[in-house]
Amino acid sequence: MPCVLQMDFPTDGPFGAAMAEAFAELAESINDEPGFRWKVWTENRDAGEAGGIYLFDSYETAQRYLDKHTERLSGFGISAVNGKIFEVNEALSAINHAPVSGES
Amino acid sequence: MPCVLQMDFPTDGPFGAAMAEAFAELAESINDEPGFRWKVWTENRDAGEAGGIYLFDSYETAQRYLDKHTERLSGFGISAVNGKIFEVNEALSAINHAPVSGES
Repeated sequence: MPCVLQMDFPTDGPFGAAMAEAFAELAESINDEPGFRWKVWTENRDAGEAGGIYLFDSYETAQRYLDKHTERLSGFGISAVNGKIFEVNEALSAINHAPVSGES
Repeated sequence: MPCVLQMDFPTDGPFGAAMAEAFAELAESINDEPGFRWKVWTENRDAGEAGGIYLFDSYETAQRYLDKHTERLSGFGISAVNGKIFEVNEALSAINHAPVSGES
């Protein structure tokens, strides 16, 4: 059962192109995480927040990554992390063209 | 610039197949919302929460839908809605195979 991990946290940046440059290597490493399918990198300069929407193969792999990334963010000085894991309702998501089916 | 709308709220259900049956008509209608690209329907029976991850063409269309759906949820008796809009960092999302580029 695919699961969504949604994470967001307060940050002063970097945003945009500077964010892309700062975290390209981290992004590459995420492709190797167990059960990982995709991540949308999210940012809101005006709100001073950033985060990500991830799709994992299972609740367990999503939870493992949430634990790992929360610890990493803590090392960056970011502790107010909002992280939630949800199962995907596949029938409704299929109606709305969500890219969640198929193999990883 | 594509934008993610993430919404979640407390709920006693329905979940799973019953949720899919209850909201199929609503899902169909969402396909007609201005700027809408896709929605992943999310649910967590154990946490008593549900929601969605949406992709819209722009901040404005995401905001318009957030306002509309927040009012609709209020009509269902759901007022504790956690709704946030983020821009997509396309360079990093491309590294992580996120399904966010291209036309709607």
